[in-house]
Amino acid sequence: MKALVYTGPEALEYRDVADPVASDGEVMVQVESVGICGSDMHAFLGHDERRPAPLILGHEVSGTLTSGPNSGQRVTVNPLVTCGHCKACVSGRDNLCPGRQIISMQPREGGFAELLAIPERNVVALPETVNSDQAALTEPIACGWHAVRIAKTQLQNSNDAQALVMGGGAIGLGAALSLRAQGVGDVLIIEPNAGRRTYLEETCGQKSCAPEALGNNQFFDIIVDGVGIEASRAQASAHATPGGVIVHIGLGSASGGLDVRRMTLQEIAFIGTYTYTAQDFRDTAHAMFDGRLGALNWTQDWPLEKGQAAFQAIRSSTVAAPKIILKPNI
Amino acid sequence: MKALVYTGPEALEYRDVADPVASDGEVMVQVESVGICGSDMHAFLGHDERRPAPLILGHEVSGTLTSGPNSGQRVTVNPLVTCGHCKACVSGRDNLCPGRQIISMQPREGGFAELLAIPERNVVALPETVNSDQAALTEPIACGWHAVRIAKTQLQNSNDAQALVMGGGAIGLGAALSLRAQGVGDVLIIEPNAGRRTYLEETCGQKSCAPEALGNNQFFDIIVDGVGIEASRAQASAHATPGGVIVHIGLGSASGGLDVRRMTLQEIAFIGTYTYTAQDFRDTAHAMFDGRLGALNWTQDWPLEKGQAAFQAIRSSTVAAPKIILKPNI
Repeated sequence: MKALVYTGPEALEYRDVADPVASDGEVMVQVESVGICGSDMHAFLGHDERRPAPLILGHEVSGTLTSGPNSGQRVTVNPLVTCGHCKACVSGRDNLCPGRQIISMQPREGGFAELLAIPERNVVALPETVNSDQAALTEPIACGWHAVRIAKTQLQNSNDAQALVMGGGAIGLGAALSLRAQGVGDVLIIEPNAGRRTYLEETCGQKSCAPEALGNNQFFDIIVDGVGIEASRAQASAHATPGGVIVHIGLGSASGGLDVRRMTLQEIAFIGTYTYTAQDFRDTAHAMFDGRLGALNWTQDWPLEKGQAAFQAIRSSTVAAPKIILKPNI
Repeated sequence: MKALVYTGPEALEYRDVADPVASDGEVMVQVESVGICGSDMHAFLGHDERRPAPLILGHEVSGTLTSGPNSGQRVTVNPLVTCGHCKACVSGRDNLCPGRQIISMQPREGGFAELLAIPERNVVALPETVNSDQAALTEPIACGWHAVRIAKTQLQNSNDAQALVMGGGAIGLGAALSLRAQGVGDVLIIEPNAGRRTYLEETCGQKSCAPEALGNNQFFDIIVDGVGIEASRAQASAHATPGGVIVHIGLGSASGGLDVRRMTLQEIAFIGTYTYTAQDFRDTAHAMFDGRLGALNWTQDWPLEKGQAAFQAIRSSTVAAPKIILKPNI
């Protein structure tokens, strides 16, 4: 098959590789759409020691089954593979399974390819009303869905909660859509890129502002940090309501930024969130199928073959759409 | 009356001051025991901008009512005065009341004195079986009680939880006792002072070790950080179980130390906790009255008059007892 292979810092090669082999319990997916995630960019830049070259990146996949009894079924793929029987898995926190694997990290190659082998339990069947680009958004939105669920649990009473989302990429926008779908209507996204802000407002119907435009006296019950750098954490801990919660999805930098003194005196919770449980993934997919996540028209397609150029376009901040989708078949 | 007045960095003067005046709804307490808290030490050293001199410090008070219909009743004093009608107060998070006051911070003088005026709703009547030194421990233990309650709520399932408490002073020991009283039996206290460790083990029946003795592969579902410095937060975030919770009571330093990357990848929650609600204070008092907090014999008495020497003894780390109590009447 053809695949886009990460061969070293800032280098992606579109080339022939061996077809994947489906193990017991796995199905083969013919990839139709696969999103580029911030973590793919991190790896592309050579900054992710968990993803050494050579490697097929990409974990936001939709496509069509080409094996098994449901061959021909269109699906979206949960890329997180867990054991199903450890303490974390049986208690419904399967995303914390110590044996968790994610495609695009060894031993599992990713989805920037024509074919992908994945456990059958990881696919969710698509209705005809959802196209493959929309379906590829299930994964990034599920990250926000999970974070919002955790924030609401922490807050206990989230009626009339005001929410702030930091970062207007797919993670942030997915969190904003998840907040509304889970009953939190008052959501502001902060995003430094002016073109992206216009896109968020005009195409996605979101309220947004630049980070520096946030007033000193604006406080939020729920803050979703989808950026995860010192500056975003500093701003989050300054703008959380007393008793509020910051859910932190971003992996931008490893430490620093939090005003721990204020968080202590005002009982602010900071909760790390990673991916989603299998149930969160299914819940996100069904919210999408029911139209509760909006039009999901905020993608831009590129041929998989042009993957290197797509990564460079994202780096140059010239892309307003929150999600670039690579497609093997265009 | 006589009072111990903080007059500037490292200076306490035992001198005559005007008697306090009880306002409407307030009662007068003749102070019998008043503990020295880490925050009193912080102020004594001139490091707390919220407590400028001259000021009567001290907020861990027990005594006897000398006014009102219950005059003669022995009581323990909740030093946190809240409005009772704001959103935080009516939702049971009265410790987050924006108008909260605490004695030993203006406009309320503290308890290092013969007399204290306090709202009647802030006193809890003592049974005869509890002495005034034990009663003065209600306040520091209530801080741990509250933090443990928050940690258990966050963890949802705390059956068989393993807990680590950082710091073997009154806050840490109070948290360890609260953990047991709230059903978490497996508790380890880390404490750098060897004399304090021996005291914790021999007098208080606690398990303890030095911070550097903690093994790399020891993980805890609940961590109570009663120290609150970079080093303790670094250790807490390294030793929390995936999905675990750190409750942070300490105000040692304002930022730094947390391994945010690990907290994100392993969904570790960090929750600031400040004091206690009025209900937590009463629950702690009743746990004490019922004997669920142990013998509470880990205090050492000093005359209030010798307050300056008592502060210096704590600073020199020559005191093994986790709590020094000042007494106006010895």
